[in-house]
Amino acid sequence: MALNQYTPEEPISSIATALAPAALGIVRVSGKGCIELVSKVFSRPRALLEAPGNTIVYGWVVEPKSAVPENKSGVPEALEGPHHQVRKIDEVMAAVYRAPKSYTGEDMVEIMCHGGPSVVTAIQNLLLKNGFRQANRGEYTFRAYINGKTDLTKAEAVREIIDSHTDDSRSHAAGRLAGALFAEIDSIKKLIVDTVAAIEVEIEYPEDEETIADTFDRGDLEQAVSRLQSLVDSWKGEKLYQDGARVVLAGRTNAGKSSLFNAILKEERAIVSDIEGTTRDWLESWAGINGIPVRLFDTAGLRATDDAVEAQGVELSRSLVNDADVVLYLVDSVTGMNEEDEAFLNACQIPCILVWTKIDSPEASSMSLRGAERRGNLRFLLEVSLSSKTGTGLSELFNQIEKILTSGLSTERTQAGLGSARQKDAVAEALERVKHALKAAADNYSLDAVVQDLEDALDSLGEVTGIVTPDDVLGSIFANFCVGK
Amino acid sequence: MALNQYTPEEPISSIATALAPAALGIVRVSGKGCIELVSKVFSRPRALLEAPGNTIVYGWVVEPKSAVPENKSGVPEALEGPHHQVRKIDEVMAAVYRAPKSYTGEDMVEIMCHGGPSVVTAIQNLLLKNGFRQANRGEYTFRAYINGKTDLTKAEAVREIIDSHTDDSRSHAAGRLAGALFAEIDSIKKLIVDTVAAIEVEIEYPEDEETIADTFDRGDLEQAVSRLQSLVDSWKGEKLYQDGARVVLAGRTNAGKSSLFNAILKEERAIVSDIEGTTRDWLESWAGINGIPVRLFDTAGLRATDDAVEAQGVELSRSLVNDADVVLYLVDSVTGMNEEDEAFLNACQIPCILVWTKIDSPEASSMSLRGAERRGNLRFLLEVSLSSKTGTGLSELFNQIEKILTSGLSTERTQAGLGSARQKDAVAEALERVKHALKAAADNYSLDAVVQDLEDALDSLGEVTGIVTPDDVLGSIFANFCVGK
Repeated sequence: MALNQYTPEEPISSIATALAPAALGIVRVSGKGCIELVSKVFSRPRALLEAPGNTIVYGWVVEPKSAVPENKSGVPEALEGPHHQVRKIDEVMAAVYRAPKSYTGEDMVEIMCHGGPSVVTAIQNLLLKNGFRQANRGEYTFRAYINGKTDLTKAEAVREIIDSHTDDSRSHAAGRLAGALFAEIDSIKKLIVDTVAAIEVEIEYPEDEETIADTFDRGDLEQAVSRLQSLVDSWKGEKLYQDGARVVLAGRTNAGKSSLFNAILKEERAIVSDIEGTTRDWLESWAGINGIPVRLFDTAGLRATDDAVEAQGVELSRSLVNDADVVLYLVDSVTGMNEEDEAFLNACQIPCILVWTKIDSPEASSMSLRGAERRGNLRFLLEVSLSSKTGTGLSELFNQIEKILTSGLSTERTQAGLGSARQKDAVAEALERVKHALKAAADNYSLDAVVQDLEDALDSLGEVTGIVTPDDVLGSIFANFCVGK
Repeated sequence: MALNQYTPEEPISSIATALAPAALGIVRVSGKGCIELVSKVFSRPRALLEAPGNTIVYGWVVEPKSAVPENKSGVPEALEGPHHQVRKIDEVMAAVYRAPKSYTGEDMVEIMCHGGPSVVTAIQNLLLKNGFRQANRGEYTFRAYINGKTDLTKAEAVREIIDSHTDDSRSHAAGRLAGALFAEIDSIKKLIVDTVAAIEVEIEYPEDEETIADTFDRGDLEQAVSRLQSLVDSWKGEKLYQDGARVVLAGRTNAGKSSLFNAILKEERAIVSDIEGTTRDWLESWAGINGIPVRLFDTAGLRATDDAVEAQGVELSRSLVNDADVVLYLVDSVTGMNEEDEAFLNACQIPCILVWTKIDSPEASSMSLRGAERRGNLRFLLEVSLSSKTGTGLSELFNQIEKILTSGLSTERTQAGLGSARQKDAVAEALERVKHALKAAADNYSLDAVVQDLEDALDSLGEVTGIVTPDDVLGSIFANFCVGK
């Protein structure tokens, strides 16, 4: 979405809740004159027009039958007239917000209606016919930003909080929404600004210093470097909790992939069948594994086949495996490991856990014998035995998955972690600039060069919170939002 | 749900919006003391407690870290204290309603939060840990009914409006929600009540009448009979627009079922492939055909097969055909009709439309020749030629489907149609009673018997609106609602 498609103040409207049957739905509008526009399709226009901000007005959303009155007198019909003169859409509560006390900082109305897809769609269509433009993705939050109601770290946290798949993910986004990252950036900026001020005094009134490094307290900049480094380090972990990881179930037909998939989701989604080759396509679903959002993939069986559709499936599952962060390779404890399993496990370039399934089976006792000679040939260590039926071994599996996914991440996750790749790039740039300034000072370079580095660093940090942000960056930030936000 | 599980006044809570990523979500609570309970997990408890009804309070939903304070002083932490003393869940707007001015007639709070499934779930779970019980299906509307905020025709219209699949369906439910049916029932009741009153005067002060039929004006009762009959007749049409119809696509493999399915839905949902047998399972989706909600089924190919899974599919598609309201039997205009098609069409007991597909193909010109000799043998008339690719013939198909589905329905759909089978049974019972009263009068039976019939009729009509309704009927009405309503 190009930024010039966002036109502040123009009345915009959109459905703000998910489009599925539910008790309640919300259609939300914002912009200049939006309360007046809504009043034209509201059964109690005066009540709406006179409502103070942050109050709720009961009424019906109504569609005037036509601009030309049906009665012969030529007198236009009153909206508050008898039932039959207007087409009633739904009985609603209209929440009225008046500028600047609203999410966007503009006048707003949030129409809380019944949650049927056909109802919310009918209301939105009615508004579009009555002076509103369909809101672009993230346009409400963009207006909030333009109107100084939010900074970019909080705006991005809004998108994050909506998309979060686990409590842990949401909790970190909430920290950023509450301003934890903003406060940290602000505090680091202060260290740099203070140093710049000290240096500028020195440039104005130079003293008889031996070296540039002595002209200002480097402690502040060293502290800034360390805190910026922590922020940059936080991103890998934050990204994991935000985007999630891809975990792919692989293994021969009947190794128990669908059963494990279902056990993890705690619901029956895959077709579980005794006939080979039932799962021809892959299935996927989100799951929370020890707080980490995981996209779980159940692949087709990897056996050779003449069936064209199934062969496509096998190809697909190979590419899923190659894109995975963790592969769970399942081997049936009853039938044991064969050369096909061994070949896969030795060839696999992705971190892989060997999962022995069906250990609840009475025949599974022979497992260690059957597997032993081949396991000796394998080059990796992670191995879990479990039963999808009883749940035994599942938590051990989750711990192993977590261990792989978090290896190499900074162990401490603070509320002030970074919330997007964009923020990380800008903070990393600021870090480089401050480091460069310290080196320039140590090398006894000119004070002006040090100040230039620090001002570049401040610009980069300004981009993070949105004080200095190029238009194209802004455009791409809000294009990732959902409509209605 | 047994009615005794609905306990008015007890604080209840539930997610009221659909659980999918969206801009906004709502968690709704109702019951005695609910505002106080919410204030315990709200960043600005005083603002919430002091809020007048129908106003909106800004704040954060917060989770107190524990009952025991973490600081060593032993002084309990204030909720409005520094950020780090509570776990922030989400930044929200809380809509406060005070009894009796609310949907349920009780105190209520609607927490408008960000629309991520993990956010709304976290808030709901927090409320359940802090004094709220999970609301049963339809429990808010049940409380509205108990507290005299709605009658049963309007309550049932709420469920209907949420579940409606087309504008026409929703519009009729909205009429009932606005009270059109209630008003019609009320007006019919008045005719009967007036007649009863007239007869009772006659019983008290008998005059010298020849026959019972002369003692009161039968015109009122005859009008009641005619209007009750109209209501009963309306149900079949209302039911069609409410529940929708089942339309099943059948035909040989490659007849073009998936393409037509997709053309109707105007979106790609089925896997379209050149390989025979791709669609092994049936697909279904809702579509609006000339305003009628239709569940569209795409069946597996009906060819004989040795594959066990596919054979299951063929069996399944036969049973889908048998449950259909309309069958669309597709024949490829290029390859033409064969004896298998002819056999199906002659055996089919369900209203069926013969659909010639792929008429955009240059080879389709031979269709009339290829089909001609077999079409002569068919016993039915409806036939459409279309191209799923170009859309030609689709609207003709829709008109034919509508014609089949609405045949025999009363053509006029009024706003005062019936909204449920329950209402229809009660109105039909009232109709029988009034007819019986008229017959009793004509047969010169006792006046007391006439009055008894009319009072039974009034009881039945009372059941429709909920003035006289047995508990078990109430229980089953609200059990069909979605949670949060």
